[in-house]
Amino acid sequence: MSTDIGDRVRSAKEAYIRLMSETTSRKDSALEAMAEALDREREAIKEANAKDMSAAEAMVADGSLTTALMKRLRVDDTKIDEMIAGIRDVMKLPDPVGMTMQALELDDGLELFQVSTPIGLIGVIFESRPDVVPQIMALCLKSGNATIFKGGSEAKESNRSIFKILTEAIASVEGMPHDAFQLMETRDDVTGMLEMDAYIDLIIPRGSNDFVRYIQDNTRIPVLGHAAGICHVYIDRMADPKKAQEVAVDSKIQYAAVCNAVETLLVHEEATGILVSVAEELASKGVELRCDQASKRVLSEAGVQCDDADEEDWDSEYNDLILSIRTVDGLEEATAHINRHGSGHTDCIVTEDKGSAERFIAMVDSSSVMVNASTRFADGFRYGKGAEVGISTNKIHARGPVGMEGLMIYKYVVLGDGHVVKDYSGKGAKGFTHKTLAKRLEIR
Amino acid sequence: MSTDIGDRVRSAKEAYIRLMSETTSRKDSALEAMAEALDREREAIKEANAKDMSAAEAMVADGSLTTALMKRLRVDDTKIDEMIAGIRDVMKLPDPVGMTMQALELDDGLELFQVSTPIGLIGVIFESRPDVVPQIMALCLKSGNATIFKGGSEAKESNRSIFKILTEAIASVEGMPHDAFQLMETRDDVTGMLEMDAYIDLIIPRGSNDFVRYIQDNTRIPVLGHAAGICHVYIDRMADPKKAQEVAVDSKIQYAAVCNAVETLLVHEEATGILVSVAEELASKGVELRCDQASKRVLSEAGVQCDDADEEDWDSEYNDLILSIRTVDGLEEATAHINRHGSGHTDCIVTEDKGSAERFIAMVDSSSVMVNASTRFADGFRYGKGAEVGISTNKIHARGPVGMEGLMIYKYVVLGDGHVVKDYSGKGAKGFTHKTLAKRLEIR
Repeated sequence: MSTDIGDRVRSAKEAYIRLMSETTSRKDSALEAMAEALDREREAIKEANAKDMSAAEAMVADGSLTTALMKRLRVDDTKIDEMIAGIRDVMKLPDPVGMTMQALELDDGLELFQVSTPIGLIGVIFESRPDVVPQIMALCLKSGNATIFKGGSEAKESNRSIFKILTEAIASVEGMPHDAFQLMETRDDVTGMLEMDAYIDLIIPRGSNDFVRYIQDNTRIPVLGHAAGICHVYIDRMADPKKAQEVAVDSKIQYAAVCNAVETLLVHEEATGILVSVAEELASKGVELRCDQASKRVLSEAGVQCDDADEEDWDSEYNDLILSIRTVDGLEEATAHINRHGSGHTDCIVTEDKGSAERFIAMVDSSSVMVNASTRFADGFRYGKGAEVGISTNKIHARGPVGMEGLMIYKYVVLGDGHVVKDYSGKGAKGFTHKTLAKRLEIR
Repeated sequence: MSTDIGDRVRSAKEAYIRLMSETTSRKDSALEAMAEALDREREAIKEANAKDMSAAEAMVADGSLTTALMKRLRVDDTKIDEMIAGIRDVMKLPDPVGMTMQALELDDGLELFQVSTPIGLIGVIFESRPDVVPQIMALCLKSGNATIFKGGSEAKESNRSIFKILTEAIASVEGMPHDAFQLMETRDDVTGMLEMDAYIDLIIPRGSNDFVRYIQDNTRIPVLGHAAGICHVYIDRMADPKKAQEVAVDSKIQYAAVCNAVETLLVHEEATGILVSVAEELASKGVELRCDQASKRVLSEAGVQCDDADEEDWDSEYNDLILSIRTVDGLEEATAHINRHGSGHTDCIVTEDKGSAERFIAMVDSSSVMVNASTRFADGFRYGKGAEVGISTNKIHARGPVGMEGLMIYKYVVLGDGHVVKDYSGKGAKGFTHKTLAKRLEIR
């Protein structure tokens, strides 16, 4: 399988030129074929997955794979149903290619159009989740992007089976450039991909923090994603106690292993009553609490067990039933802590005071800012994206939960009639009109 | 001046938190103060510039600076007038911060807003053009971005003078975070900046190709810009001869030294008549022609002097009165050549055939695609941007001529009333409404 990586990357890029101008109906036919093929080939997929699962069991036994990762590896009929439903969700999304974003008359007979286009060739590097392949392939196909996939070695058989079924389905639609999708399998392939910045336009890594950081550190290709998710809930002086408790508890324990779970609770020094009841509930649910001095004093007096936090705790993403707690003297200290120690992912204020909410929103530099709502809402599905590419803490291109819009860019098209720049410069120069036009470029 | 780079970068980032929530009227007051200060301090600026100019003359004499670069260094009253006008143009632009891009009801009492925000801290590294400082400072201030400037050493006195005048003007508006703007002066400062990816969110390099490539190769920070501008004009079989000649000549000689000038002319094999007349005019205007075999045959027969092109020519940006010429058998070969050898900057077709124009637009993967219009139109001013950040050949974030929109990103804001995710999962889960709302988030 590890023949010439370069050739395969180049052929995907060439296929992209054809894919970017495919019609909506042909792309939707390919998506339907993909959905039907997964349904038809269930047994083949489950067989391939069984091979991965038995290898994984051995790896869990010798400690080289965690049970959590093994769990994410399993593909059963429910998972296949979800893959199929995911592809059909993408079919329902409007075709994002060729939309006129802006039309401007530059001068008589000279018109400028800004038109949405795919980005080009996307590299998707992921750990053991075979459901990434159908999800991302559907999104990329609909948006006209070619894609190089590289999955984890522990999901090799599953990925290979699913990838083959899907690309054969695409090829069944005559003339569809199925070369646009390629599967890589080895570590050398990854090294090769990361060096091909002349061809690959964007890397989307899906996996652990260390994994994402490794990718970021080893390529010149732009990376869309997030390394850390150090999220905060700030309980303001004017917080409603019941809402504070529900939001803090949900943000921590509804699913502690994910990036949008809270890691640090900041509590206003006058909200000690709320601190005690939140801490009591969390402790009763098995959450380990790591407190600064002021919070520890309050909790100890109330008989709630807690440990001392050290400086490292404020910069830690536990992804586990652990919460650091710090008492602050107000909004300024809370937002300063968040901007300093947070990862710009998702941060929340609980308050009934509109002014405080407004200042928090204005001053917290994070991709999602919540007011009286759990940090766990920061997610593409909940945000109504239809399908999620991933969550980004980038400050350019796409930030927060990213849907198909993150796979799009635009080009400018100028339609003239022999217009030249020399007529618009020097003495007697013509001027530009720059008049907004209510028209679309009727071209794909 | 080269004290602690880190401290200054960090203080700019802290100031950004205040700058990002400044009101429009206060930002416009600062811009007005900047414009007035430049007008008032003309003599100081010209004095500082005179020092740079006399040093530059010595450098030109000993060959360490080109006259072209020296010319761009000069600041006279006309240049100062342009700087002032540029700042006032930015004042007129709408404030891009805090615009609601999307409002969505997630459920009863749970609302999602996507709101435009500044990117954060921008690093601007440029060669000898002192007018970059007022232009970029105005754009960044209006868009709420902090900025670290690093200019060329040959413009040191001019940059220092202009920077001081502008930041003092900003400081004259009470409470404006003038720390948000910092000037670096040494090479070590650049090395330091490029390493501070935890603080600097985007680098905008302005200068030669080698300079931009050096920056791209030496930082993990995203870079907005373009290294090469290898632009093409394709003269189709159905081209109007007069338009073809005017567009090709303008694209080459209206200003040959810039990135949107044409470097390679592609001519349909049946358009030999046009090839001859275009080549005759260009040759008569001193353009050196480098041709493939087929083009050379045609031109030699017509008595037009030309050289042989070699493979390297197709990948060359001359920025000079040189043009490579290749004959192609049609649109497919033309677009394949462009996608292979071009830099994705600006490419043009001359044709009267609508179908060919459409296919060219669909298949050329460049930031600007021209139909019957000079490549030289690809420019922020001509595209009506009001002010230009630069031209980008990136495939993410901002592509083509970039105005203030390239300095913007967004955050998501969720307003709830104690909403938690556990109510939306498992048995009896509540559903999301995902209903578009016609409202704005009234917050900055």
